[in-house]
Amino acid sequence: MPKFAQRIYDMESSAKIIRALFGAMDSPNIISLGGGAPASDALPVEAVHDICTDVITRNKRGVEALQYGSVLGVSDLRKNVADILLKPKGLEAELDEIIIVNGGLETMNLLCQVYINPGDVILVESPTFVHCVEIFEMFQARCVGVECDDCGMILEDVEKKIQKLHPKLVYIIPTFQNPTGKTFPLERRKKLAEIGSKYDVIILEDDPYQELRYSGEPLPPIKCFDKTGHTVYANSFSKIFSPGSRLGFCHASHDIITKLFDAKTATNSHTSTFAQVVCAEFFNRGLFSSQLKKLCEIHRERRDVMMNCFAKYMPDGTKWVHPDGGLFSWVELPGGIDTAALLPEANAAGIHYIAGSSFYVQGGNMGSNAMRVSFGNVTPEKIDIAVQQLASLVKNKL
Amino acid sequence: MPKFAQRIYDMESSAKIIRALFGAMDSPNIISLGGGAPASDALPVEAVHDICTDVITRNKRGVEALQYGSVLGVSDLRKNVADILLKPKGLEAELDEIIIVNGGLETMNLLCQVYINPGDVILVESPTFVHCVEIFEMFQARCVGVECDDCGMILEDVEKKIQKLHPKLVYIIPTFQNPTGKTFPLERRKKLAEIGSKYDVIILEDDPYQELRYSGEPLPPIKCFDKTGHTVYANSFSKIFSPGSRLGFCHASHDIITKLFDAKTATNSHTSTFAQVVCAEFFNRGLFSSQLKKLCEIHRERRDVMMNCFAKYMPDGTKWVHPDGGLFSWVELPGGIDTAALLPEANAAGIHYIAGSSFYVQGGNMGSNAMRVSFGNVTPEKIDIAVQQLASLVKNKL
Repeated sequence: MPKFAQRIYDMESSAKIIRALFGAMDSPNIISLGGGAPASDALPVEAVHDICTDVITRNKRGVEALQYGSVLGVSDLRKNVADILLKPKGLEAELDEIIIVNGGLETMNLLCQVYINPGDVILVESPTFVHCVEIFEMFQARCVGVECDDCGMILEDVEKKIQKLHPKLVYIIPTFQNPTGKTFPLERRKKLAEIGSKYDVIILEDDPYQELRYSGEPLPPIKCFDKTGHTVYANSFSKIFSPGSRLGFCHASHDIITKLFDAKTATNSHTSTFAQVVCAEFFNRGLFSSQLKKLCEIHRERRDVMMNCFAKYMPDGTKWVHPDGGLFSWVELPGGIDTAALLPEANAAGIHYIAGSSFYVQGGNMGSNAMRVSFGNVTPEKIDIAVQQLASLVKNKL
Repeated sequence: MPKFAQRIYDMESSAKIIRALFGAMDSPNIISLGGGAPASDALPVEAVHDICTDVITRNKRGVEALQYGSVLGVSDLRKNVADILLKPKGLEAELDEIIIVNGGLETMNLLCQVYINPGDVILVESPTFVHCVEIFEMFQARCVGVECDDCGMILEDVEKKIQKLHPKLVYIIPTFQNPTGKTFPLERRKKLAEIGSKYDVIILEDDPYQELRYSGEPLPPIKCFDKTGHTVYANSFSKIFSPGSRLGFCHASHDIITKLFDAKTATNSHTSTFAQVVCAEFFNRGLFSSQLKKLCEIHRERRDVMMNCFAKYMPDGTKWVHPDGGLFSWVELPGGIDTAALLPEANAAGIHYIAGSSFYVQGGNMGSNAMRVSFGNVTPEKIDIAVQQLASLVKNKL
């Protein structure tokens, strides 16, 4: 058989992690803290049922939903993005500065199509979201980790690495970060936008958890402080509407959107109009605010249960992040316990998590005592069982 | 701003054609023979309405449809692909030899991710589907046209060019080809599969029009004659179910599907489960055969009307393809009329088509007197008006 393209070899290590991640989703006998899904109980099934029953008819939006659509996306969905998801955050966007994509991650793929040549450097957080590393490595980018503290990227290290490595992109999840749950503070947001402009580097701001805040005060996106068009704002409908619809959006300058249009046509023409029409109607009917309230209530409870279980069950010396929102916490174990080595035992005991080392691009020993845990799609009862079980495994190793 | 990636410059000429193609779709005052959509009147709006009303509930498939899904796709949709779309064509496929993708074109994108390095050669038909050329050029492939006759690719030229250029892929639409409407005959199908095996070249068989046959006898796919796994079979639900759902599938050897899995996760994780569940139910309920009958009836009438109008209105010396199915015919004008030069006048007269030169990768004068016309989403009355108008424009130039 013909040899695969070079990118297939270059992406192998991150692809292996992603395969394992998807594999664990399918195991019904495991309580998985490893996924990134929002609560199934909170999905707007009834709303989608009612919307389909009402508008998927020949006299309303049935033909629009089932026929080919426009590359940038369904107009009223883009208008809802501008009015309901961007404007309240201080972002004023024209409709031709928004493209609807097939799930939040597709923005990362398309932006790489537009900007990344093999060998280009992308700066990422340490740790960072491994699924995006897979995307970047498929484009044969060289991912370099930036030093992070309890608030995320340390900007002195960003500047130092920009000067030394001349990256094309800086990739950041500033709010309730994946995998750590940490949030990047206001002053650093301003400064990072300025760094993008000053050094002519694209700041790729991936913000899918922003709306899911359970405590603390909302912060403006980095994009709010972008005066030169260097910040690209990526977001998703997966956490606030439905992952299975595979809808996301990107807000960027018109020049960048024009090129994303070309990359999108050469990837899959356009995003499902069927899913877009239903999602647009969800916003048109004013259902978003009550849905968001429900989502936050359910996930806040799960976060609180997980935090309480950590305090109650985990051995002394364990550290964890108390996230103000999103779906993740980051746990560091005491006594040099290797979470990757512990994982088969945890799986055998019916628990799954993602080993911390998976989220570091520099390899070595980084994150070897850490794990990403999600409370998103696990009931409070199961969170209690899982943390108790995990604590017992860890204590046995100490 | 940072410089775009090299691929953006390499794809510029085909991207320009695709932009124009999508632009013309939006003009309500033009009768467009330029698109590739099936009849809006034939879309299964009522079936989708009833399916959603029935299964998008918490007790049935609502949570499955709205939550994250598996990378390869919803199981019962893949089973329907195997049983209803592949088996009757003589193709026996295991479920792990099928991946559901986001519209038929996404297979071309993902297969390029898996196989194409910059500079790799892809052999294509002359003329070929320009949208796929855009995809191939985004991957910086060098597209080379194979000589074609009234039945499609001339195999002596395929072999000659394989020996000389060592391509990675041969891209072919064997049935009711886009743009010409021509069909590749049985003997050449067998031979092309053998050529793929003999020279270790992937045959990428793109077959989205296969089901839409209005006359003549069905032919087995090239993939039926593949003994070594070199043929990759790409198909779409756009023409037989709904374009707006953005669903397609790829059937290939398990080894290739394993790599397509990685490329898919690094593109957009998976295809909309919402759209997949609804499409799976459409097949589960046995609605496909009556829908296909309806589709063929509507499109057969439109084809016949277009053929009759050509005979009735077009000036002597005009040649056109009488397709046995699909959505397209290919018209060659007499008197050296340049169809690209004629297009602004045609648009001003309220008619749109795609100039033939758009579909040739070698440039030069090829196809300059030809045009692609679609009867798919144009009512018989409008086909009559459009061809009459077009004939009058052409006669004025003679």
